[in-house]
Amino acid sequence: MSLKQRTRSHYRYFELHRLRWSDNDQYGHVNNSIYAFLIDSIVNSYLISSCSLRPTDSSSPHIGLVVASKCQYFASLEFPEEVELGLAVRKMGRSSVEYEVGFFRKGRDEVSAVGGFTHVFVEREGRRPVKELREELKEGLGKVLVPLGEEKARL
Amino acid sequence: MSLKQRTRSHYRYFELHRLRWSDNDQYGHVNNSIYAFLIDSIVNSYLISSCSLRPTDSSSPHIGLVVASKCQYFASLEFPEEVELGLAVRKMGRSSVEYEVGFFRKGRDEVSAVGGFTHVFVEREGRRPVKELREELKEGLGKVLVPLGEEKARL
Amino acid sequence: MSLKQRTRSHYRYFELHRLRWSDNDQYGHVNNSIYAFLIDSIVNSYLISSCSLRPTDSSSPHIGLVVASKCQYFASLEFPEEVELGLAVRKMGRSSVEYEVGFFRKGRDEVSAVGGFTHVFVEREGRRPVKELREELKEGLGKVLVPLGEEKARL
Amino acid sequence: MSLKQRTRSHYRYFELHRLRWSDNDQYGHVNNSIYAFLIDSIVNSYLISSCSLRPTDSSSPHIGLVVASKCQYFASLEFPEEVELGLAVRKMGRSSVEYEVGFFRKGRDEVSAVGGFTHVFVEREGRRPVKELREELKEGLGKVLVPLGEEKARL
Repeated sequence: MSLKQRTRSHYRYFELHRLRWSDNDQYGHVNNSIYAFLIDSIVNSYLISSCSLRPTDSSSPHIGLVVASKCQYFASLEFPEEVELGLAVRKMGRSSVEYEVGFFRKGRDEVSAVGGFTHVFVEREGRRPVKELREELKEGLGKVLVPLGEEKARL
Repeated sequence: MSLKQRTRSHYRYFELHRLRWSDNDQYGHVNNSIYAFLIDSIVNSYLISSCSLRPTDSSSPHIGLVVASKCQYFASLEFPEEVELGLAVRKMGRSSVEYEVGFFRKGRDEVSAVGGFTHVFVEREGRRPVKELREELKEGLGKVLVPLGEEKARL
Repeated sequence: MSLKQRTRSHYRYFELHRLRWSDNDQYGHVNNSIYAFLIDSIVNSYLISSCSLRPTDSSSPHIGLVVASKCQYFASLEFPEEVELGLAVRKMGRSSVEYEVGFFRKGRDEVSAVGGFTHVFVEREGRRPVKELREELKEGLGKVLVPLGEEKARL
Repeated sequence: MSLKQRTRSHYRYFELHRLRWSDNDQYGHVNNSIYAFLIDSIVNSYLISSCSLRPTDSSSPHIGLVVASKCQYFASLEFPEEVELGLAVRKMGRSSVEYEVGFFRKGRDEVSAVGGFTHVFVEREGRRPVKELREELKEGLGKVLVPLGEEKARL
């Protein structure tokens, strides 16, 4: 199964995002860089709402830094449409988490793009990788964890 | 009445926009520049859906160029919240249109910011101001036209 | 004298900024929102290099918040060109500062746009306006202060 | 040799980019999404200056669409510093081109990040992959082509 065959069923948490005028570039479609903004948004939105991440609270000890990112683009998106994002965690390690995000036009089944990134969770001070993910993080991420079977395409 | 007292009743067309992770700057709130992106988005979204603007269709003869913009900021917005935008046209001239946009936190009455800009509609080729706004434009914009009385604060 | 007649001589601190692919919108020129990003950049760059602003240092007590912004656009800019920004302070109050920024195409005399904003300096904690600007701020900003005479256009 | 060991000698075309205030996110460093903007900028800037790409000229028959992108992040960048980008083409196919971009702090040897993307060149109308890259494109890209030997890490 190729990445292009991803459907909503491969994801566990969804958000509808309204595109912006400036997302379209000179070719009249959403610029590739914008997908990274949206991936960052759904991941952090989920971490804040469901995993107790507090990005600006200096008493919250761990933050997630992006160490690698990827995206594949199959079909254009265009402002002013809305785009539905689906999130799944594909892998949880000792300090790292791999997320995958699918982009779907509102009301369409075929995936427009599949992207994602790897977070390494670090101490807010010093920014060294944590020895273990916090319990709330593991619990929240566990709810959207869908590991890929052998037969599945990886991003 | 000051701008700070604007309520949803001063606007005619509304959109709910999801903020993005990167909209927050180092001070943990939405950067002032992002408001301009959102103003541009609701204006063009309305022009496309209700006034037959076709930005990338070279057979569509007129486009709107921004000649002046303004914004006043009263209270912070913060990702991951959603923000409700309200749009009104304050003035329609022969070739120019003044838009005003109010920013409201979802579920809150007080306005967080009031901004807007002036479009001059020009010929796509040559980019000279049009002699008259197209009929579809006048009709669509007329539906959200709320001129300000003498007693009202102007942006 | 109208704003359109501003020249480099009306500014005191300069930076050359390379435009980005995504700065151009569907009309093939730099989107109006991008000017706000650039104004924010030259102001904060100057505050950091010449006025001891430390945006992310929690021991640095004051930060500057934007309360109002404006821009007028006279001629297009286009990626991949570079743009020269000129900065001047037009007014310093007890807690507020008004900045003006001129946009010049590299090697061209006519101003492409004139924009700016008003900062209110606040306590980092509590975000209440300061009673007085810090000495280093007054000194640094004083070096680029060019108040406008009666005869000069204001933004 | 790992990607982390890339030096300026692995690239052929360079640009110095000034970072922007809004590039820093809530963690006080350049957000991962911004790297994609910069990659897009140096690639298109080179295509325009050295390969006769005319993005907005409807008589120019081919445009490049991004079908896949990747980035690895080794060390932070921070506004207000400037970043030096190095560009190399790693592979040229019949209709596709793979670019790699290295990010270097001004005056530093170690690479901060390595990213890139794959362009498929398509007909402007219809957007089907071209049968062959235009001569000017092959010539311009050939000047920055540095294929990777077997022993070299690939992005």
